[in-house]
Amino acid sequence: MVKIFDTTLRDGEQTPGVSLTPSQKLEIAIKLDELGVNIIEAGSAITSKGERESIKLITSENLNAEIASFVRALPVDIDSAISCNVDSVHLVVPTSDLHMTYKLRKTREENLNDALKAVEYAKNHGLIVELSAEDATRSDLEFLKELFKMGEELNADRMCLCDTVGILTPNKAETLVKNIKEYTKLPISIHCHNDFGMATANTVSAIHAGATQCHVTVNGIGERAGNASLEEVVMGLKSLYNINTDIESEKLYKISRIVSKMMKIPVPANKALVGDNAFSHEAGIHVDGLMKNTETYEPISPEMVGNRRKIILGKHSGKAALKYKLELMNIGLSHEQFEEAYSKIKTFGDLGKYISDVDLKTVINEVRGVTLEKKVILDELTVLSGNKISPLASINLKFANDCNIKDNIREASYGVGPVDAAINAVRKALSGVADIELEDYNVRAVSGGTDALIEVIVHLRRGNEVVEVKKAHGDIIMASVEALMDGINLLI
Amino acid sequence: MVKIFDTTLRDGEQTPGVSLTPSQKLEIAIKLDELGVNIIEAGSAITSKGERESIKLITSENLNAEIASFVRALPVDIDSAISCNVDSVHLVVPTSDLHMTYKLRKTREENLNDALKAVEYAKNHGLIVELSAEDATRSDLEFLKELFKMGEELNADRMCLCDTVGILTPNKAETLVKNIKEYTKLPISIHCHNDFGMATANTVSAIHAGATQCHVTVNGIGERAGNASLEEVVMGLKSLYNINTDIESEKLYKISRIVSKMMKIPVPANKALVGDNAFSHEAGIHVDGLMKNTETYEPISPEMVGNRRKIILGKHSGKAALKYKLELMNIGLSHEQFEEAYSKIKTFGDLGKYISDVDLKTVINEVRGVTLEKKVILDELTVLSGNKISPLASINLKFANDCNIKDNIREASYGVGPVDAAINAVRKALSGVADIELEDYNVRAVSGGTDALIEVIVHLRRGNEVVEVKKAHGDIIMASVEALMDGINLLI
Repeated sequence: MVKIFDTTLRDGEQTPGVSLTPSQKLEIAIKLDELGVNIIEAGSAITSKGERESIKLITSENLNAEIASFVRALPVDIDSAISCNVDSVHLVVPTSDLHMTYKLRKTREENLNDALKAVEYAKNHGLIVELSAEDATRSDLEFLKELFKMGEELNADRMCLCDTVGILTPNKAETLVKNIKEYTKLPISIHCHNDFGMATANTVSAIHAGATQCHVTVNGIGERAGNASLEEVVMGLKSLYNINTDIESEKLYKISRIVSKMMKIPVPANKALVGDNAFSHEAGIHVDGLMKNTETYEPISPEMVGNRRKIILGKHSGKAALKYKLELMNIGLSHEQFEEAYSKIKTFGDLGKYISDVDLKTVINEVRGVTLEKKVILDELTVLSGNKISPLASINLKFANDCNIKDNIREASYGVGPVDAAINAVRKALSGVADIELEDYNVRAVSGGTDALIEVIVHLRRGNEVVEVKKAHGDIIMASVEALMDGINLLI
Repeated sequence: MVKIFDTTLRDGEQTPGVSLTPSQKLEIAIKLDELGVNIIEAGSAITSKGERESIKLITSENLNAEIASFVRALPVDIDSAISCNVDSVHLVVPTSDLHMTYKLRKTREENLNDALKAVEYAKNHGLIVELSAEDATRSDLEFLKELFKMGEELNADRMCLCDTVGILTPNKAETLVKNIKEYTKLPISIHCHNDFGMATANTVSAIHAGATQCHVTVNGIGERAGNASLEEVVMGLKSLYNINTDIESEKLYKISRIVSKMMKIPVPANKALVGDNAFSHEAGIHVDGLMKNTETYEPISPEMVGNRRKIILGKHSGKAALKYKLELMNIGLSHEQFEEAYSKIKTFGDLGKYISDVDLKTVINEVRGVTLEKKVILDELTVLSGNKISPLASINLKFANDCNIKDNIREASYGVGPVDAAINAVRKALSGVADIELEDYNVRAVSGGTDALIEVIVHLRRGNEVVEVKKAHGDIIMASVEALMDGINLLI
């Protein structure tokens, strides 16, 4: 059983521009504990008053996990940690000549003495001590061994090897751990950074070679290129090495999103395991294979990590994907209609276009010879906004003949901003007509500049049916309202 | 010298929702060629008419790189590739029993026969053939060897091992390559997917074991969790293994951004080497170390990959970072002022706030006892927008006494959307007052919902001075105008 030492609240929070409040840190700590993390590094107590508040809040929660503070080999750092009632300290000692010479400006001997004094001091105060060699991967092996041997004699509890600038390779990780294991009986922990994109592989390689604990962060966040990803390490160990941890893997997607939202760091769509594309498929041969056996193009099932499978239509889609989508929508087409629809989708794709549910429905109606009459038409929208007025919008909606709504509906609404006002007006106008819920609204700038295309993505629900609509426009208000109207027409 | 086979235009473009036009594909191909890529997989010719147009456009450009098309072991696929005048085919043959049984529905023998016939057919048409085993890492080694041995006899030029669902580990990658090398003298290529976050490490491990070519994509984009990253593999080989490629590494940042913009896939801030945070530092001990010697916390210099170093102020910053920033801004503070400014920044940070240049300047003025009088004040802004009118904005700006501008300036402007109209109005109003340029404008939604906080980030330049301002507001227009006004006041 490998132990997971999570440093999301310390390394992760060191991501430039990120800073959490004490209550946010507590919320994440509780979730990490529920996930099954063994040790939570809650922060570095010396950093600031707010940081100490956060750590105290977490230690007073009586979580299952061991709560640690990062400390340097200084009594003042250890005292700060003690004042927060932590169980343990992650006692970090630079061991490379580079760090000792330039950063610490100490000789090896001075540094070793200070480190060992700190271990003694922490142990005398009843703390669990993880003695950690910073920049271990650029350190003289003999000095590392000396530090660890003497640390062990002073009853340090665990040793940690930090690949501070991410220069480890899987081979070197194995060799290093094997070397160190000859000199200490204590558990060895590995702490990897991702400067060359190899943090996960180096971490699992170190464990393969005998390390029994690893430092990770949710989504791999952290300073510079970040740290080893909790989800990648845990699932890599489980699926590829048959090594278990206490992590409840089906909770991984959820914690990924909680941390992302709180730290305001988006999860890349192609992030392994927890990205929105991690189990998405567009290419024809892939979708065809998947329909026959999901194992052909998926190493594990998305449910194992709480994620889900998506089939996307686009230029690279084959007929299997279209068939799958039609089945989902409960739509039957003749052979000729199917072929025509397939060819139209390819043309769409060649134009560089993503095929949304709305596009697909338009294609289906075309090949069926049905003119898709919009049920609800945006006749007029006017929005007024500024620094001295509450944003307001007026709207005028027309209805198709078969809706049995003779008159136009006019509505007005205010909002926190012009987009909110416009959307509120549409919702008000339709509240008596259809029970459609705006599940999700997201916006992103496709390019830079104030005249950039803004892409709005909405998810609308009516009963059990959910549609996704994307709309790009130079005007964010129009993009939002058009996306909403398209979705409404699709659902009515 | 390891050869780089770039599949950004095939695997990369298979990212769900991505589709490039032929001219976009050509532009990327030219940049890849300039970068020093040896082989460019331009697409899969059979996919569509537009795809063939793209490939033809690229082959007619006479680039230095070899141009390849992806093909299945089918004459129709190879004919499509030939019609596009490619130099080579990446001939992909599924070799796992799983893929043969479920996807191909062929026996091993049938599959082998079809594969070899395809090799012969392609060679007879004068093509370079890279014979590629799909799902090689879940295939019977004996079958793999048989295919490669017989392919070699038919004059295939290179062999490729595909880790189709990303289940390789560094150890297994080495063993596999060593095994295959015993059976063929041909160059071996490795193609890794990132489903467990180990594509880069597996790729460099395979090369370490004797593979001489690797498949990569810019930014690691691709279906699901993507492929091995070009920049990570190239720099990992160079810096950690001392293995060279033909890539001009200082162009890596630029190509990363070109591909990102064209494919509309943002580069994560913590992407190794090319992310905006890859060489950013906030933590006190890190910045302190860096100031003394950049090697303490950077494995390579950012310039090597065309990126740059950033020092960020925040909760974790130490005094070194503040000192560095003040030097950059050419501001001198007394010892007491410095200490007060440092403590204020810590307080800011504890509140969960990112400290922008504007915030820092505010702090500096406070500790100096200077009341920062705004030079330009937004007195009134009104914006009108809708589906039947051109978005328009009117603005009224007041000026501080020492500006020698007595009257308010009123202006009006239209724009492609309400934000553009408002920004245009401000720019018009100030065009005679200060020569300030809006270098960059970016927007992102901090959370979901139409009433979500929208964060606007602007970069303004006046002569050589550039300031960055971030502003969050529920109203995108107000966020944009406030950010602009803050930046202007900072520069005037």
